[in-house]
Order: sequence, then C-alpha cells, then structure tokens
Amino acid sequence: MKFVTAKHAERVFVGLADEQRQLVIHLREAQKAMSGKAKLPITMIECLEKGEAFVREAAQIWSWALEQDEPAGSYALAEVKLLAPIPRPRKNIVCVGKNYREHVMEMSSTGQVPEHLIFFTKAPATVIGQEECIHSYSHLTNELDYEGELAVVIGKKGKGIRPEEAGAYIFGYTIVNDVTARDVQSRHKQFFLGKSFDTFCPMGPFLVHHSAIRDAGQLAIETKVNGEIRQSSDTSQMLFSIADIISVLSQGMTLEPGDVIATGTPAGVAKGMKPPRFLKSGDRVEVTVEGIGTLCNTVK
Amino acid sequence: MKFVTAKHAERVFVGLADEQRQLVIHLREAQKAMSGKAKLPITMIECLEKGEAFVREAAQIWSWALEQDEPAGSYALAEVKLLAPIPRPRKNIVCVGKNYREHVMEMSSTGQVPEHLIFFTKAPATVIGQEECIHSYSHLTNELDYEGELAVVIGKKGKGIRPEEAGAYIFGYTIVNDVTARDVQSRHKQFFLGKSFDTFCPMGPFLVHHSAIRDAGQLAIETKVNGEIRQSSDTSQMLFSIADIISVLSQGMTLEPGDVIATGTPAGVAKGMKPPRFLKSGDRVEVTVEGIGTLCNTVK
Repeated sequence: MKFVTAKHAERVFVGLADEQRQLVIHLREAQKAMSGKAKLPITMIECLEKGEAFVREAAQIWSWALEQDEPAGSYALAEVKLLAPIPRPRKNIVCVGKNYREHVMEMSSTGQVPEHLIFFTKAPATVIGQEECIHSYSHLTNELDYEGELAVVIGKKGKGIRPEEAGAYIFGYTIVNDVTARDVQSRHKQFFLGKSFDTFCPMGPFLVHHSAIRDAGQLAIETKVNGEIRQSSDTSQMLFSIADIISVLSQGMTLEPGDVIATGTPAGVAKGMKPPRFLKSGDRVEVTVEGIGTLCNTVK
Repeated sequence: MKFVTAKHAERVFVGLADEQRQLVIHLREAQKAMSGKAKLPITMIECLEKGEAFVREAAQIWSWALEQDEPAGSYALAEVKLLAPIPRPRKNIVCVGKNYREHVMEMSSTGQVPEHLIFFTKAPATVIGQEECIHSYSHLTNELDYEGELAVVIGKKGKGIRPEEAGAYIFGYTIVNDVTARDVQSRHKQFFLGKSFDTFCPMGPFLVHHSAIRDAGQLAIETKVNGEIRQSSDTSQMLFSIADIISVLSQGMTLEPGDVIATGTPAGVAKGMKPPRFLKSGDRVEVTVEGIGTLCNTVK
C-alpha cells in the first residue's frame, strides 16, 4: 500500500495511491461507501497513532476498492495535489549524517568514516510536498545543495529498541531531499541552521507501507538534477543500517508514530563535485528510491 | 504577569501565578467568573497563537483577580502541580551553543569563541516541569551534566527578522536546564542525541511576559547543585544577544508562537570542573534567573 496525504478542492485527506489505474482512494470516503461509516482519523499522524488497526482497516478498504470499477471516494491522480505524507511533523525530522562511505570521501579530505552515528535535525516547517518549490534563498546562500535520501516513518511508540526489534517500529518508507545551504551549515558548525530553511525538506510523494518493501537495506537510490544523474547508489551501502539507526536513536529518546528519520545521502552532492555545481533557480531535482517512487521539486 | 501551565485534579490549565498571595489563577475559570464566558483557549500554545489579544485578556483577568479577596478560579500554589509552561512544544527546542566566553574557555583547550552562532535542538519529549525528575540514564552515560539557561518564548510568527525588530516577536522568558550526556554528545559529534534523552529539558516554572522584564540582557543567572553554586553569571555576558539570536535564526526559518529558544549556558558546568563533577542520582539542580524564578529538579 502506498499512502498519500492529498488535497482536492482545498480538502486535505489521507489516501491510497492506485498507480495502475492512476487513482487516489480517499480512505474515509471509501470507508463510508464500503461500511456506511467513516471511522478513520483525518490526518496521517492520527492514522499512524492507531497502529495496526489502521493498517488493517486501510487494507480492507484497499481490497474493496480494487474490486470496484469506479470506487466511491476515488479521484484521478492528476486531479489531486500530493502533499508530503506527513505535511507537518510534530517534531523536527531527524537526519543521519555521513552514512555512505563515498559521500564521506567526497565531503572531507581525510575521508574518515564516522565510528558512531551522527544525528541532526531539520525544523518541521522545512517540509514541502511533490512539485512544491524549493526556495533558493539566493540572498542567504551561494551553496544550495540536494541530498536524496530514504526516510523511515515510525509507526509505534518505543524506547530502548534493540536492533533486532527495530522492524516492528517501522510503519513504512518515504523519500526525503535533505536540502542544505552548505555555506550556512559550515559557518554555524552544528548542521541544524543550514538544513532548516523553510522548504528545505521535500518529502514524499508516497509513504509506502513496510509490507510492500522486501528489504529496505537493498534499494537503488538515485538523484537527478535537470535530468542528469548526480547520485546513484543503493541503500545496502549505508554504513549504519536502519535497525542500528532506530536502536541508537531510541536508547534515551522515545520514538513516536509519525517520526521521520532520514537515513543519509550517498555520494554525488553538488558540494562534492569538482568544481561544485550548486543548485540555482529553475533547477529540477528528482530523487528516486526503488519501490517507493520519485520525488520531484523545482528550485525557485 | 507570570504565566504557568498547571495541573489540578488531573486537569491541565493555563494560569497566572500570584506569588504574593501564593495563588494560581485559572485563566479560563476566572474569565468565566468575570465575564460569564470562558473564551481563552485551553493550552499555552493556543493562547500564544492569539497574540496581543491573549495578553490583553489575561491582563484584564489579572486586574480583576487582584481586586478579589478570593478570586473565583484560583488555587493555592501548593495545591497545583506546575508543568512546563509549554509541556509539549510543536517542534524541537532550539538551543544556542557556546554563547558565554567563560563557558567556551572551560570546555575547550583553545578557548576560541565562535565567530557565528551555533544552533542545535532538543527533542520535544525532553521537556519536564518543576520538580519532575531528570532520569540519570546510568546505563547510557557516565557524564550527566546540567546547563542553566535563559529561554525565550516566541509570541508572533516571523521570518527574516531584523535585530532591531526582534523584541516584537518575544512573548516572554522562562528557564531551561539543557541537561546533557557529555559522552554521548561527543561520541556522536552533532549535539542532538546527547541532548535529547527524555527528561533532559526541565523548563519553567514560569513563563514571564516580556513586559515584566526590564532588560533580558541584564539578568543574573545561577545554577546550584545540592545547594552549592556551580554557575553564576549574568545574561549581559552572552556573546550573541537575544536580538541577534532571533534575527540569525529567522533568516530562512519561520519562527512561530510557542517556539522555545534556549540562549546558552554560562561557565560552571560539571564537565568544566577539574576533576569533572557530573550529576548522579539524588542530586538536586536549581537554576535561578533574576526576575523569572527558580527551576528545581532532582536526578533519579
């Protein structure tokens, strides 16, 4: 199941994307048509908080919709605007730094890979959806950069999670572009500020349930700028696995449904090129993760 | 006016502390007694979002209550539990690193003060209130440390704020103890993780409206551990002023009502002592900021 947060006629709703028929199923409307009652919550975070019950109900609606020629509560994909699956997270997005060896090499002269996980955050107002514009902030930065990443969305509250249990806390996966003002990032030492300008976290378009992903540690990941491949790797190249990330992060800090964790970016960012080729107004960035989709945004 | 978020008989409410009479005025209940109608929102963040209208209404209720012998909707301070003024921020708390020269000296051999502001964040679940326990996490850290800080609470949405306008975006001030696991902080390079264990952000007890503070850049600040003074300084010693902090932070990132910004800690943290004297279970930490109050928590 590919979950979306979508907007139609100014109404925001949680839906399921039916890519084959190019439809989006409005979960509450379909639920009402199917069972006479719309019981699911309105927002994605509230749905996630319902845990397995949400997944079961969504799966029922999905099966029902697949059997209908024109399922009630469905819209043509082209008619809706896809927002970020979680348009406004309830806390900062957590990101992993330096989690691909080749990216560490391109960013530093020593090429020393980290012995321990590096975590930083992006403010919630950075989040934008499919085809929304990344602002260039040309008055604030000369070094606007992209970072295509696989992101994990937490589905279950947990703390002190062991790596072997981590899978049970994952609701699913989405794509994040960890847009960065490199000069601001390095000027202010800690990464937060240069990563947190409004619009610096394109996310989506789909939140893919974990059951649809065989192994999140084996997914091709690619970033294109104006059609040119800049990043091309595989999540198997991560230095720290998703299970390790969840475990280390949760030792002292409670993870909650709706938390978004970006797992790091592979080599090929603008800053790593010789000479660097930073983003400029008009550039189109497309991040593709195998089995999840393609996140497209233009710089403006 | 000293605003509080308080709890009485399992009900959480926004109130005003009347320290002279040792009362807390329940704003909505008092408003109802005064005008027949409780119009104010339930939570502090929602109140802050009402902007100046909230301040006006609170001031009217305050004047009314001062004239009553036993104002309706008032509780003895001893009868209520003071929560953090903002018990669950809607995004991470932003903190300034290395903002007092003497603290920079104690933490580094070079003693190089930063040329630019350093910002990092703490997760929302770190927040606890007056007299709640800081967990020691003795299985995760051997270097539990305190950092007494003045914190600014934003009252008005803004972006690209100039330093000279910054005051207009401040609702008021509170106290934060930026509790830190030093070994975790340094092991993971970026500060986020070692600062973000649950209970690592005692906050409060009061959120003091800016009108009650003559100059937030001239306030004595002191931290005691078990009665012994460890930090003793003045906010005039900050390297970057509150106006600078708000301005730099808001250039690319929208500030919103309820945002909490901790302004950095002076010298005297456990890590800076020779030998270091880290916190252990049973230790009592008290942070006092002139004109604001004293934030007290015990390690457990």
